[in-house]
Amino acid sequence: MTAKSAYQDLQDRFQRMAVFSEAMSVLHWDMAVMMPPGGAEPRSEQLAALKVMHHKMLTDPAVRDLLDASENMALDDWQRANLNEMRRAYIHAVAVPEDLVAASSKSGMECETLWRRAKKQNDFDLVAPALTKLLGLTRQVAQAKAEKLGCTDYDALLDEYEPGGKSANIQPIFDDYAAFLPDFLDQVLSHQEAKSPLPPLKGPFPIETQKRMTRQFAETVGFSFTRGRLDESAHPFSTGYKGDSRITTIYSEDDFSGSLMAVLHECGHALYEQGLPDAWTHQPVGDARGMTIHESQSLIIEMQACRSREFASFAAPILREAFGHQEGLSDENYYRRNILVKPDFIRVDADEVTYPAHVILRFRLEQAMLKGDLTVAELPGAWNEGMTSLLGITPPTDTLGCMQDIHWYDGAWGYFPTYTLGAMTSAQLFQAATEADAAILPAIGKGDFSPLLSWLRTHVHGQGSLLSTDELVSRATGRPLDPEAFKNHLKRRYLSD
Amino acid sequence: MTAKSAYQDLQDRFQRMAVFSEAMSVLHWDMAVMMPPGGAEPRSEQLAALKVMHHKMLTDPAVRDLLDASENMALDDWQRANLNEMRRAYIHAVAVPEDLVAASSKSGMECETLWRRAKKQNDFDLVAPALTKLLGLTRQVAQAKAEKLGCTDYDALLDEYEPGGKSANIQPIFDDYAAFLPDFLDQVLSHQEAKSPLPPLKGPFPIETQKRMTRQFAETVGFSFTRGRLDESAHPFSTGYKGDSRITTIYSEDDFSGSLMAVLHECGHALYEQGLPDAWTHQPVGDARGMTIHESQSLIIEMQACRSREFASFAAPILREAFGHQEGLSDENYYRRNILVKPDFIRVDADEVTYPAHVILRFRLEQAMLKGDLTVAELPGAWNEGMTSLLGITPPTDTLGCMQDIHWYDGAWGYFPTYTLGAMTSAQLFQAATEADAAILPAIGKGDFSPLLSWLRTHVHGQGSLLSTDELVSRATGRPLDPEAFKNHLKRRYLSD
Repeated sequence: MTAKSAYQDLQDRFQRMAVFSEAMSVLHWDMAVMMPPGGAEPRSEQLAALKVMHHKMLTDPAVRDLLDASENMALDDWQRANLNEMRRAYIHAVAVPEDLVAASSKSGMECETLWRRAKKQNDFDLVAPALTKLLGLTRQVAQAKAEKLGCTDYDALLDEYEPGGKSANIQPIFDDYAAFLPDFLDQVLSHQEAKSPLPPLKGPFPIETQKRMTRQFAETVGFSFTRGRLDESAHPFSTGYKGDSRITTIYSEDDFSGSLMAVLHECGHALYEQGLPDAWTHQPVGDARGMTIHESQSLIIEMQACRSREFASFAAPILREAFGHQEGLSDENYYRRNILVKPDFIRVDADEVTYPAHVILRFRLEQAMLKGDLTVAELPGAWNEGMTSLLGITPPTDTLGCMQDIHWYDGAWGYFPTYTLGAMTSAQLFQAATEADAAILPAIGKGDFSPLLSWLRTHVHGQGSLLSTDELVSRATGRPLDPEAFKNHLKRRYLSD
Repeated sequence: MTAKSAYQDLQDRFQRMAVFSEAMSVLHWDMAVMMPPGGAEPRSEQLAALKVMHHKMLTDPAVRDLLDASENMALDDWQRANLNEMRRAYIHAVAVPEDLVAASSKSGMECETLWRRAKKQNDFDLVAPALTKLLGLTRQVAQAKAEKLGCTDYDALLDEYEPGGKSANIQPIFDDYAAFLPDFLDQVLSHQEAKSPLPPLKGPFPIETQKRMTRQFAETVGFSFTRGRLDESAHPFSTGYKGDSRITTIYSEDDFSGSLMAVLHECGHALYEQGLPDAWTHQPVGDARGMTIHESQSLIIEMQACRSREFASFAAPILREAFGHQEGLSDENYYRRNILVKPDFIRVDADEVTYPAHVILRFRLEQAMLKGDLTVAELPGAWNEGMTSLLGITPPTDTLGCMQDIHWYDGAWGYFPTYTLGAMTSAQLFQAATEADAAILPAIGKGDFSPLLSWLRTHVHGQGSLLSTDELVSRATGRPLDPEAFKNHLKRRYLSD
């Protein structure tokens, strides 16, 4: 009876915290999408106040006692997994002394501010001291968490984004891809060059038409506007919660496709959130499994489904109808444009073949920096060397090199690998889905995403955080994450026709 | 030292509560303006959680001790007024037992739901039992508060909206207007009829043009879009806080003027909030003085300034430019349209001459119901009798009669009088302002609101809640609220030309 009520008490507490987190997500969304400049200062106070409240609720000493009291209770699988997730959240919150949390958060804000200036002025020296300080504090945070979690320093940081993630498992997967890439990339580029030149897209593409189009395509992939919104912001993102998913994009008159693909990508994230198990809303086990699975869901919609030949043949006629007929919008040319490969300096603009190289570089560098094997002063050189070795191109400036991403400068270390783990996972999941249901791809060719969505609801979305990422992938696909699925997908798409 | 820190502790606590209130106002705004239907349930949980947290902070037993400990401290005028406002908020929060708060809030929600149906179906009997129950609970709330505040039951409810307001002072003011109205209204209507018929406005008025216009006029009266937003919602409203004021309106293609005037009205509210004293942001004494002054600020912009002949001569050419030339938009006809008087059943559509009659009726009826002198069953009859006696028209249905407003049915009793007190106050303030600075009216005629705003900043906005409403009006105008100013304004505007 006592033990029973301890678990129930925890559920009630985490339910309240989840409601607070939801409120914060609305305030964050508003800040990025709606808020006038004058609202910046009050908003940061509001968010800080809610964060403090949330932190207090989570680190309440009673939570530890309740966690311990619940440990020997008879719980079913979902409750047990829920309890584990509660403990994980608790450990992350209490592992780091408050003054270190405060110092590292302050240092992150200072470093981010300097980074914006340094990036604009291409002046790495301007931000280097702040980054060195932030790295030192991040190392202390990692050590404090590692001790409590019983893992390596790097994995302690990774765990926040990818629960249970291990760099020792990621390393061979990434090394394998790094070895595969140079030859493969050469083949893809030759294969591409052998074809007739791709006719350019001729704009302008009126923003109002683009808005109508992106809305329509969002609905096509299963996004519901009675349970979500689509708006504009400086960088596309997805946020919200069950019943109220909010995605954003940014439009340009010169090109509709970047914006459209961004929306489809964010729709994948939103569909995951919308499909999480109803019975566990507001409980940690009802949350998304982690950033690897989250990214796999955005990429399964964007990369696997919406850059397929099938989808191009559905979408291109609609786009021609909307923007007027032009050669660049033939079914074939639209498809070819969506799978164009071109090594470039900037990660966020990269195609799916070269994207992993960007991530592998960052994964290697952030581990080396955290260990102390690479100093901040050595970062620009190491970056450019890595780019040259992985992609055969050398950034002409640090702005196009080691200063391009906000990550690291805002204190986010250990996040990068989830992008490529997500890409690989999406390929493996999509293969399993299309093998399990042969109707999925033909349906996508008709703009019907329900067979795909149905498979994802069962095998991914509805699982919440019941399973570890590895278990989820194993159960859904019959084997653990295996980079062959991704490589096979690339070979098929980029070399077969 | 102890006493000093007690007051400082209170300031810190009220600062935190204010930040929570701000967060709630953003969530409320989002609910009315942005939220998709699926967000309704989670949003009500979020708001409830924040409300509970705010209530806990305010009713913390430590607050009472700190209030008592601060009482004998050496405080300056602002601090003393701040302390008084803190105590008022505390009393309102603790006066009513929690179970009565919960019962009355639940009853209000049930009654409001039934009211929506009953109003649509014109079926008062459908909502009468729920309203009777709600009235009973409201009476208990009023009694509980009256005991702590040392005032009458009705005034205890009024105090929430109009701090320190007394029905005994309102009664003679309203009675005076009720006596003045019938004859005056006859004169106004005859005066109006003696003129040539007003040519109709010929639409449609494109929504996009209206949006541009309302934005431009909002800026004209002093609304800043770097510190605020203008959006659409089912009913116009104003919310937000210093740095981030948000107003809304609703557009119709058939008529631009309703929407435009609604925006100017809400701008008046927003300008007040933006002009509150910076030094006291997040403290009770830094808040708006009450709903009477708040309404006076919306009406001083809408009714006193923007329906003046001076403003019409500035606005009409801009409107003709935007919507095309037509007879109905001549300077003279635009002015006449803005001051059209027509007795009607619906309060929110009423002109400024007949509006007080709607309020006086409700003020009389809600007092009688609270006292038990009038039952809910007798309400429709008493309403229609009152309308006939005050305005000479009898509502054909209860939907156009006693069911038209959400007030009462959602539990808001004691709010109505502030509308007309605000109207009367705005006339008196505007008279004082234009007498103090002869440049105000000519400037309005050129679309320059800075002289008016400057006077309001000093005499109203910047005062926060330092003074009582009566004191504020006395200091700003040289005398307490005096209905003659309003009547003189009406005589000048409606009979003199």
